[in-house]
Amino acid sequence: MANLELMRELQVASSGKIVMLVIDGLGGLPMNPGGPTELEAARTPNLDRLAAESLCGLSVPIGPGITPGSGPAHLALFGYDPLQYEIGRGVLEALGIGFDLHAEDVAARGNFCTVDEEGRITDRRAGRIPTERNVELCELLRGIKLPEVQIFVETVKEYRFVLVLRGEGLAGGLTETDPQRLGVPPLPVEALVPEAERTARLFNQWIAQAKEILADQYPANMVTLRGLAKNPGLPGMKEIYGLRSAAIATYPMYRGVAKLVGMEVLDTGESLEEELETLRSHFADYDFFFVHVKKTDSAGEDGDFERKVAIIEHVDELVPAILDLKPAVLIVTGDHSTPALLKSHSWHPVPTLLHSPYCRADQTDEFSERGCSRGALGRFPAMDLMPMAMANALRLTKYGA
Amino acid sequence: MANLELMRELQVASSGKIVMLVIDGLGGLPMNPGGPTELEAARTPNLDRLAAESLCGLSVPIGPGITPGSGPAHLALFGYDPLQYEIGRGVLEALGIGFDLHAEDVAARGNFCTVDEEGRITDRRAGRIPTERNVELCELLRGIKLPEVQIFVETVKEYRFVLVLRGEGLAGGLTETDPQRLGVPPLPVEALVPEAERTARLFNQWIAQAKEILADQYPANMVTLRGLAKNPGLPGMKEIYGLRSAAIATYPMYRGVAKLVGMEVLDTGESLEEELETLRSHFADYDFFFVHVKKTDSAGEDGDFERKVAIIEHVDELVPAILDLKPAVLIVTGDHSTPALLKSHSWHPVPTLLHSPYCRADQTDEFSERGCSRGALGRFPAMDLMPMAMANALRLTKYGA
Repeated sequence: MANLELMRELQVASSGKIVMLVIDGLGGLPMNPGGPTELEAARTPNLDRLAAESLCGLSVPIGPGITPGSGPAHLALFGYDPLQYEIGRGVLEALGIGFDLHAEDVAARGNFCTVDEEGRITDRRAGRIPTERNVELCELLRGIKLPEVQIFVETVKEYRFVLVLRGEGLAGGLTETDPQRLGVPPLPVEALVPEAERTARLFNQWIAQAKEILADQYPANMVTLRGLAKNPGLPGMKEIYGLRSAAIATYPMYRGVAKLVGMEVLDTGESLEEELETLRSHFADYDFFFVHVKKTDSAGEDGDFERKVAIIEHVDELVPAILDLKPAVLIVTGDHSTPALLKSHSWHPVPTLLHSPYCRADQTDEFSERGCSRGALGRFPAMDLMPMAMANALRLTKYGA
Repeated sequence: MANLELMRELQVASSGKIVMLVIDGLGGLPMNPGGPTELEAARTPNLDRLAAESLCGLSVPIGPGITPGSGPAHLALFGYDPLQYEIGRGVLEALGIGFDLHAEDVAARGNFCTVDEEGRITDRRAGRIPTERNVELCELLRGIKLPEVQIFVETVKEYRFVLVLRGEGLAGGLTETDPQRLGVPPLPVEALVPEAERTARLFNQWIAQAKEILADQYPANMVTLRGLAKNPGLPGMKEIYGLRSAAIATYPMYRGVAKLVGMEVLDTGESLEEELETLRSHFADYDFFFVHVKKTDSAGEDGDFERKVAIIEHVDELVPAILDLKPAVLIVTGDHSTPALLKSHSWHPVPTLLHSPYCRADQTDEFSERGCSRGALGRFPAMDLMPMAMANALRLTKYGA
């Protein structure tokens, strides 16, 4: 919170705009010892040229050795301490599909799953049923009623849905029902704190009714619930930084986390060109832009080194157009690393550059893991990026007399 | 504590083994400006080759400018915040000599000293009496009885002994009696907290009786007590990291600190070859190995640059045999620096490498102070090593969704 309190105290009005380009899962690893990482293998003349005029370093999303999920990793980029502000997956999914979450709501991420006759899970994703089937099943589940609470069941995608309970006196602090393995039945929801006991009972009642309704809907004949929690009620970016902030992102999760910190989520298309066009057409309207590129992470998760390289090269081609908009500060970073070698998020720090007329450029002339490791920022906490962006946009006054 | 809590939460079972080779007092200084440090003067082809495939940096044991004692320096290496977990010297010494310390015991490190007729200290180490004399004197001191407590007096070495009081209601939070200078009498033990008042009285009664017993034992005609404390009851490495951990160390102090964090202390010989053999023969039985090399520190303390160089070269020769065991992660570091130039522990950060298939090697190709200062880890807190080792051994799951 120290960071945020300082920002709140020191921020001043200014016209300089900040663009934070987040290339999801940007950091990588060599496929063979001594070889290039994805970013090093990619031809990135524009990012390299930009690095030469920038302050560079490797950002540590959460802490040394810690592999972040997408939620905490993005909170850190926006300057919020991810170890202080924990966000439930249910909240993120609800916000991501545009659900109007209220402060007293408890949201859960639901999965349709398959159980055998003894109720033991045989497929945690119900054969990845199509989204249309999900829509029909959610409609059935909307028939469930519980005393004194409103219930919302909303389709996300394929086997995923969101369940929201709304009413007075509901509380977070609840266990998940997904046992995370096959051959055992779903677990009951349990209260981790006394004030959540009624909420736990309500969720368990809902699950019991859902089980009956879904009994003949094989393979989606049961549900599990994860990340049951309330919106943590983060202070917004406008309040903290004085920044009118906008998010340009295609995936629900990232749109969700942006809303959590008070950003406007702009309508945009699926392609990078469409995201860029959205940035261009709204550039006059906001002070801060979070521009999210998802597909690098997906390629890394798939273990597809070459595809990740190709997407990075595609991003590189769009950099001049971003610079043409003349942001006061341009940050290029990732939320975490997703090396194709590991096929998953990882703990490795993330190549990062910060460009502004006042950045005091270092001697890095290559936007890469090795290049950024020699940058003047060194290894630094991702949480430090926003204060540096604010300073370089001349949006902070001095501390003390 | 944040570190440890996170580890406890995120650790998962895996088969990867971690070896932490601690070369005591590894860091050094040039004897002449511009010259090589001990490590730089040493011929270390194996460590240099390893560095080229590793992530390198300089580890800061406690904080900038802080010269650590061995206890806190090792706690930091094991991931425990040494500023949070203070360990009394008495506890370390007791554990180091293999004393079976109980949770309610209060242990003190004792020194035999010389006092004049007015009781003023003239030699804080009683002329460094031989250990055999110490044994006789401890036997005399065992004659002291106090109400409702058991008393243990155990020889450590030369002028050093351990005093342990055992009984209900004893408490730490006590001042030391060594005034740390000559010409003044020992101080009384004082309680720093109300619950330690009875314990302070007991120690003072013991000291009064010891004074009478030793009156005619010049030069060892008095004692001082330091580091009076209980075992702080640290959470163990198994509990925090899920690691079955073993220590291979020849000196009592290091065996003691390893026990404090729940390691098994393996029987081993005095030589490096015997330590290596112990590692080899127990390699299947544990997940984490702390391998301690003492003699580099002793050479540094003696101001013997060449001897320290020779021992480092000897360690280098054993590195291939460690690699042959195929640990998932090999860390080579020191607990602190002991430059021959200073003849003592020092505050200088310590050359460190972390080797694993996923370490994202930097461009350091020389294991030395200068080489490591260019490593991608930069200057980093020693406490961060364990989380990084855990990540590289694939023993941590991700944080948040």
